[in-house]
Amino acid sequence: MVNVLVLHGPNLNRLGKREKAIYGQTTLDAINERLIQKGQEWGLRVACYQSNIEGELIDRIHHAEGKYDYIVFNPGAYTHYSYALRDAIAAVDVPVIEVHLSNIHARESFRHTSVTAPVSRGQIMGFGALSYELALAAIREMASPNMDHEG
Amino acid sequence: MVNVLVLHGPNLNRLGKREKAIYGQTTLDAINERLIQKGQEWGLRVACYQSNIEGELIDRIHHAEGKYDYIVFNPGAYTHYSYALRDAIAAVDVPVIEVHLSNIHARESFRHTSVTAPVSRGQIMGFGALSYELALAAIREMASPNMDHEG
Amino acid sequence: MVNVLVLHGPNLNRLGKREKAIYGQTTLDAINERLIQKGQEWGLRVACYQSNIEGELIDRIHHAEGKYDYIVFNPGAYTHYSYALRDAIAAVDVPVIEVHLSNIHARESFRHTSVTAPVSRGQIMGFGALSYELALAAIREMASPNMDHEG
Amino acid sequence: MVNVLVLHGPNLNRLGKREKAIYGQTTLDAINERLIQKGQEWGLRVACYQSNIEGELIDRIHHAEGKYDYIVFNPGAYTHYSYALRDAIAAVDVPVIEVHLSNIHARESFRHTSVTAPVSRGQIMGFGALSYELALAAIREMASPNMDHEG
Amino acid sequence: MVNVLVLHGPNLNRLGKREKAIYGQTTLDAINERLIQKGQEWGLRVACYQSNIEGELIDRIHHAEGKYDYIVFNPGAYTHYSYALRDAIAAVDVPVIEVHLSNIHARESFRHTSVTAPVSRGQIMGFGALSYELALAAIREMASPNMDHEG
Amino acid sequence: MVNVLVLHGPNLNRLGKREKAIYGQTTLDAINERLIQKGQEWGLRVACYQSNIEGELIDRIHHAEGKYDYIVFNPGAYTHYSYALRDAIAAVDVPVIEVHLSNIHARESFRHTSVTAPVSRGQIMGFGALSYELALAAIREMASPNMDHEG
Amino acid sequence: MVNVLVLHGPNLNRLGKREKAIYGQTTLDAINERLIQKGQEWGLRVACYQSNIEGELIDRIHHAEGKYDYIVFNPGAYTHYSYALRDAIAAVDVPVIEVHLSNIHARESFRHTSVTAPVSRGQIMGFGALSYELALAAIREMASPNMDHEG
Amino acid sequence: MVNVLVLHGPNLNRLGKREKAIYGQTTLDAINERLIQKGQEWGLRVACYQSNIEGELIDRIHHAEGKYDYIVFNPGAYTHYSYALRDAIAAVDVPVIEVHLSNIHARESFRHTSVTAPVSRGQIMGFGALSYELALAAIREMASPNMDHEG
Amino acid sequence: MVNVLVLHGPNLNRLGKREKAIYGQTTLDAINERLIQKGQEWGLRVACYQSNIEGELIDRIHHAEGKYDYIVFNPGAYTHYSYALRDAIAAVDVPVIEVHLSNIHARESFRHTSVTAPVSRGQIMGFGALSYELALAAIREMASPNMDHEG
Amino acid sequence: MVNVLVLHGPNLNRLGKREKAIYGQTTLDAINERLIQKGQEWGLRVACYQSNIEGELIDRIHHAEGKYDYIVFNPGAYTHYSYALRDAIAAVDVPVIEVHLSNIHARESFRHTSVTAPVSRGQIMGFGALSYELALAAIREMASPNMDHEG
Amino acid sequence: MVNVLVLHGPNLNRLGKREKAIYGQTTLDAINERLIQKGQEWGLRVACYQSNIEGELIDRIHHAEGKYDYIVFNPGAYTHYSYALRDAIAAVDVPVIEVHLSNIHARESFRHTSVTAPVSRGQIMGFGALSYELALAAIREMASPNMDHEG
Amino acid sequence: MVNVLVLHGPNLNRLGKREKAIYGQTTLDAINERLIQKGQEWGLRVACYQSNIEGELIDRIHHAEGKYDYIVFNPGAYTHYSYALRDAIAAVDVPVIEVHLSNIHARESFRHTSVTAPVSRGQIMGFGALSYELALAAIREMASPNMDHEG
Repeated sequence: MVNVLVLHGPNLNRLGKREKAIYGQTTLDAINERLIQKGQEWGLRVACYQSNIEGELIDRIHHAEGKYDYIVFNPGAYTHYSYALRDAIAAVDVPVIEVHLSNIHARESFRHTSVTAPVSRGQIMGFGALSYELALAAIREMASPNMDHEG
Repeated sequence: MVNVLVLHGPNLNRLGKREKAIYGQTTLDAINERLIQKGQEWGLRVACYQSNIEGELIDRIHHAEGKYDYIVFNPGAYTHYSYALRDAIAAVDVPVIEVHLSNIHARESFRHTSVTAPVSRGQIMGFGALSYELALAAIREMASPNMDHEG
Repeated sequence: MVNVLVLHGPNLNRLGKREKAIYGQTTLDAINERLIQKGQEWGLRVACYQSNIEGELIDRIHHAEGKYDYIVFNPGAYTHYSYALRDAIAAVDVPVIEVHLSNIHARESFRHTSVTAPVSRGQIMGFGALSYELALAAIREMASPNMDHEG
Repeated sequence: MVNVLVLHGPNLNRLGKREKAIYGQTTLDAINERLIQKGQEWGLRVACYQSNIEGELIDRIHHAEGKYDYIVFNPGAYTHYSYALRDAIAAVDVPVIEVHLSNIHARESFRHTSVTAPVSRGQIMGFGALSYELALAAIREMASPNMDHEG
Repeated sequence: MVNVLVLHGPNLNRLGKREKAIYGQTTLDAINERLIQKGQEWGLRVACYQSNIEGELIDRIHHAEGKYDYIVFNPGAYTHYSYALRDAIAAVDVPVIEVHLSNIHARESFRHTSVTAPVSRGQIMGFGALSYELALAAIREMASPNMDHEG
Repeated sequence: MVNVLVLHGPNLNRLGKREKAIYGQTTLDAINERLIQKGQEWGLRVACYQSNIEGELIDRIHHAEGKYDYIVFNPGAYTHYSYALRDAIAAVDVPVIEVHLSNIHARESFRHTSVTAPVSRGQIMGFGALSYELALAAIREMASPNMDHEG
Repeated sequence: MVNVLVLHGPNLNRLGKREKAIYGQTTLDAINERLIQKGQEWGLRVACYQSNIEGELIDRIHHAEGKYDYIVFNPGAYTHYSYALRDAIAAVDVPVIEVHLSNIHARESFRHTSVTAPVSRGQIMGFGALSYELALAAIREMASPNMDHEG
Repeated sequence: MVNVLVLHGPNLNRLGKREKAIYGQTTLDAINERLIQKGQEWGLRVACYQSNIEGELIDRIHHAEGKYDYIVFNPGAYTHYSYALRDAIAAVDVPVIEVHLSNIHARESFRHTSVTAPVSRGQIMGFGALSYELALAAIREMASPNMDHEG
Repeated sequence: MVNVLVLHGPNLNRLGKREKAIYGQTTLDAINERLIQKGQEWGLRVACYQSNIEGELIDRIHHAEGKYDYIVFNPGAYTHYSYALRDAIAAVDVPVIEVHLSNIHARESFRHTSVTAPVSRGQIMGFGALSYELALAAIREMASPNMDHEG
Repeated sequence: MVNVLVLHGPNLNRLGKREKAIYGQTTLDAINERLIQKGQEWGLRVACYQSNIEGELIDRIHHAEGKYDYIVFNPGAYTHYSYALRDAIAAVDVPVIEVHLSNIHARESFRHTSVTAPVSRGQIMGFGALSYELALAAIREMASPNMDHEG
Repeated sequence: MVNVLVLHGPNLNRLGKREKAIYGQTTLDAINERLIQKGQEWGLRVACYQSNIEGELIDRIHHAEGKYDYIVFNPGAYTHYSYALRDAIAAVDVPVIEVHLSNIHARESFRHTSVTAPVSRGQIMGFGALSYELALAAIREMASPNMDHEG
Repeated sequence: MVNVLVLHGPNLNRLGKREKAIYGQTTLDAINERLIQKGQEWGLRVACYQSNIEGELIDRIHHAEGKYDYIVFNPGAYTHYSYALRDAIAAVDVPVIEVHLSNIHARESFRHTSVTAPVSRGQIMGFGALSYELALAAIREMASPNMDHEG
């Protein structure tokens, strides 16, 4: 069984309640439910966690080692400045897939930089809640690969 | 039937023959074959095209209008400076998904900027040939959506 | 009755104890007391909260929705880099007035940038504890306006 | 009696006639009238002056010395480049409060810099015509202070 | 009858007397005369005004509203830093065509930026005195258009 | 007889089919027809050519020498980065007038730089299809000048 | 007796478990033990604390006042952006010695900037766990100085 | 007889009344008197003029042509941004010597740039009122040179 | 026999016809002839190719693999922005020597950057047509080395 | 026996005679004497050398190879620009510890960059003359290590 | 008697032999002779020294203390990067007047920055050899002042 | 007979002893010997000189005038910041060919800038010791040219 931690960063608890034009109408709970269910279909045991506190997200990444095979991480606005989260990702052996609901390159210029991307395995963005699901699809494939996907 | 154009930019014809540590060992033909087959499974008619010439890629994007429902585009190094390709993407009504084999944020700093990303629907990178396949998965889902994925 | 949350960011608990040449001699408690009292005079129910933890400030902003009509926010040093707080402000419908004790433009250059200002309603700075009080005066006026103040 | 000079910079004579979405619908005369009246209530003798000419604004600031106790100054677009106005403010002993109708940090990037702010006492922005009135409130309080407002 | 204000900025009164290699040998009076005459041929009533004072140019732009249908404006060196002139252009409903005698992009780097261009209708430069005349031709055409010229 | 080459860069073949709010509704064919006709009225023999390929545009500029007296060139997005086109312009004795449909200074910041402008004779932008026509008017005048237009 | 607080920032709890090529093989517990013992030899009472949460580190710095004579602080990745920690250091009278395990100038460029250094007493870096011990040696010497070490 | 125009820019009318630590205690009148007297000793006819209005300074520079042999110019804060004054200097044949009372390189960073210096003959700064007198000495020498001073 | 491809980038077909002060008077054909002849003397089989089209140059570099032992490449203006050519060089095992006719560091600042240099073996510039010949000399030496030339 | 070269860069011969507020009152001779004596206590043979000439410092670093086990180097102002000294450090096998009397990050911004730090073993700064002594303590420890100090 | 050291930096020994269009035709010996003679007239004992070696110039500045009352210093190209010379100037109590033969602001952009200016008393440039003489005139005046010249 | 000075900058005396992966294994003496011998074959009288002292390299360049026909110069790390060496090259009539052992564009970013290149005749880099020999080949050819090599 492949274990996956889905980690949501700051303000994602507001999903479905805020700026719907940008982030869509689905709530975080609905996303999590669907990811868990999708995981079951695909042989992935999915756990979800959200925090607004940078240090708690760091803690979760640390604790993932030995317990999870992959982390799917939406660092929210911490994407753009949290070198501490970057170091946390580098400090564990669990590969991290960075996801974003929106296409961050189509928004304000400060969102064009990701300090966590260089230490992540890959990035998926711009598909709303589907971004997470594609990350699960990537994990399913990588766990039992049918083709070459070393980028 | 959903029609998908997979467009490969400069140097991708060298895949499997060049810098394998970065780009993997699969050839472009192998990738295309698998994408066409995957498309058949998923109800997507996939056509593939590669060119090293910026203007020919622009032409292909123009001609996609009315013929394709989605473009999966790996602009290669043109990603980082071809405002002409950016304008081509903006000049058609076909949504474009930008893909990269490698995690461009983990490489040289000039690769951290994508001038085509702001006019693309989304970005998938870092999964090798799997990046393309995830783009097809996104299209399959978007063509008959089960959940909210407006980013 | 108009409900106002006065939110103090990092290090403001040290007010009156630290760098008095810059921040004045009044303690945070004294400021809060006076704001509550001023609020009573002006028909505003004022609640005050301070935290050094970025994520707790985010939480408070989220929880303000539906409970408060306005937030008066001194983000302290988070002003200059917390895009997460910026997103929190954008994620609620409660208008935020940014205040600073000192004139941040007369200090070190890193203090000249406010990442929270673009999503705030207005900014008041440089008047010491009076900055907060002017924010309450602004709210009193906006809640029952006598003149045009759409900036 | 406290004497206050309200100084309006370039294009403010167009208020109420121009870009109403940004600057509101009140004319400059209406603002001035209300400030004079508010001043009478609060024991402040308010005089108002507008010019589009940088050098005339400099002259007025010079002449304020010995005649006015405070200047409330909206430097308009000169805010962003007039080092000559900055020197004028530094060249007199009259404290200057900088006001703006709109939240300049929510507009074009060239408006995010104020060269006059570092030599001003404080800044109030984003409340439309109310910005000026809050400056008067600040002066009323500073002239007979009830609490610590040395920022 | 179409009314056109031709506005000349700083140092243009020196035309024909200064740096002839850059600006040509025609005097400002000769240019104005020819523009007025050209205007008569083309059904345009042309008035001309020059000032070295930024604020006077602002005044003229303000006063143009209701009196002129178009402004042809050579802001001279103010082009490169006068945000106050930019605001003046934005503050009136009269469309402004920016003209320059020389090709400012072929000169010193500080001349490559125009702060007035973003709020102007169009730009014509590099044709000497003919630049102004082409602006009149543009106005003649726009006033009774034969083809699509919404850029 | 004066010979004029009108050269259209990348994506201009999409005119009238794409982003009409920015570029207008006229097709490239309609523009070309009108320019040829206008040329006939004004004693100019006008030929038109469009390509999306940078190197083909370079070829055309080279071949213009000895065949054309002027080039009217809209380099499209190549304006912003094609130093190869810049060198091509410098490599021939035919003067080039740069035109743009839209006011590039009122759009994204990457469009504010023109690498071809420094080696062009002049620039005309912001008048839609009329921009080209004004370039023809400039040529008509320069070919038999009535006034000083050495900028 | 001299009281010393040794404060460890984010991810340092992973020491000895992560990137050993950079940070060495000793665990944080081993380092702390040795520092306490070294302190005993040298007449310093050493207490140690680690947190991944920026705000908790701020709290600890505040609480150090009156309880500790010196703080030895490794801010981890917060070194590079936490102006809130910088303000916390400036807000207490306890001198802070900044230490780093690795030579941050020999690593990624974002690590070359320390926002906490300007308000610290000194910096020691590049000696692995020995960096901390040298800070204790500095404190021992400063507490009973034999020579001039006012830098 | 050699004719010299001494031109003082914005805020210099406040000399002796403002920031004496920076600009000294002598008033502008006292400086002018002494320069006129020094000029008489040295065979120079000295006239003095001050204005806070950029455009009036431009006018004076224009009018100097044919009347004055040299201009001694302290552009005050216009030094740092007035490209219009720079153009005025370039537009006349009268050589300009730029002077400053203070050493502008020892002050705020915005004062380190002089946009007028590149078109001036020379620069003298940092000697207070003596700076002007040294400019007169330079003129005396250049008008009847004893040695090589073509820089 | 050592096989060498001499590759000429954009505008080099204009050699001897354009800006002779910069590039000299020899035509490209004359250069090629001499290089072929020099090659015969030195045991090098030299083939020459020129294109203005970026993608065709990429194609030629790809096709060089297995057919040529060295490429001598003058990328013309593509030197300064063609990351696609850079990737092409990195994608083949044939070492590339970059040559320029002129000293690009003595010209406009945009020419000071070479994006192809980091993946080239070496650079030779500033000797006109002799630059190519020196590259052949380098190849002759490297093919049968007499001394240490691993840089 | 461990041999240590203490190398002092430019202006350090003025120690105790210059800016005492920044650098302290001890002379360089006094520092050297104490370091030699401290070295004797700790089993280190310490030699000291000062020069104001960049090239002489380079020579000394070269000559250290084979004669010294460690260099303690205060490069003075050369710290900020001498890439030649940086190369000298990289060109020898002797580890270099960079020291500074003052906290260079609390001073002018040009002092915040050290071009020698990336090739040094570690950095100690801000403790006045004690900085050197701590470097000796580091060497003593590294020569016979008790704990892990590979940073 | 007032003692003055005239210090010439790198390449000034080539004066009169090199780039005469920029630096004039007088040799360094001729300048020195005239300065010594001028000094005798004005009661100044003038000594001159030139070196191309940065460290020797530093030495001379150090040795000036107690022997000279003023230094007139032309640092040549070291002006633009020698922070070591800057520190040397700050390390002595002898005031330094910086002079340049040419107007450095009218030349290449790297010459627009002076790192020595902020610690110098004043700057005189652009008058060729006369620049030095004006510095002597300044010293004569400052040694027995007739007017206020504290800048 | 053609006289050539081969000038080696800082740290090149360490060649063959230091970082062999970058600079090769040949010593400086071996390089010099071979260059002298190669010179004899080619009718060039070659003299070699190395110094670590910037000012001594300047002296040598000065003394080359009248004695040498060409200088082959490897400025080492001075390449990147020594404007004094740049001025020395400009101050003599002897053409300078800049050489580097390694490809400086493939190394750290500070090595990508050459301040001496703009005043040099040409640049040859990346061929190890062969770089120098190619410079001699260039001189041989330029001294009795067979083809056009004015770049």
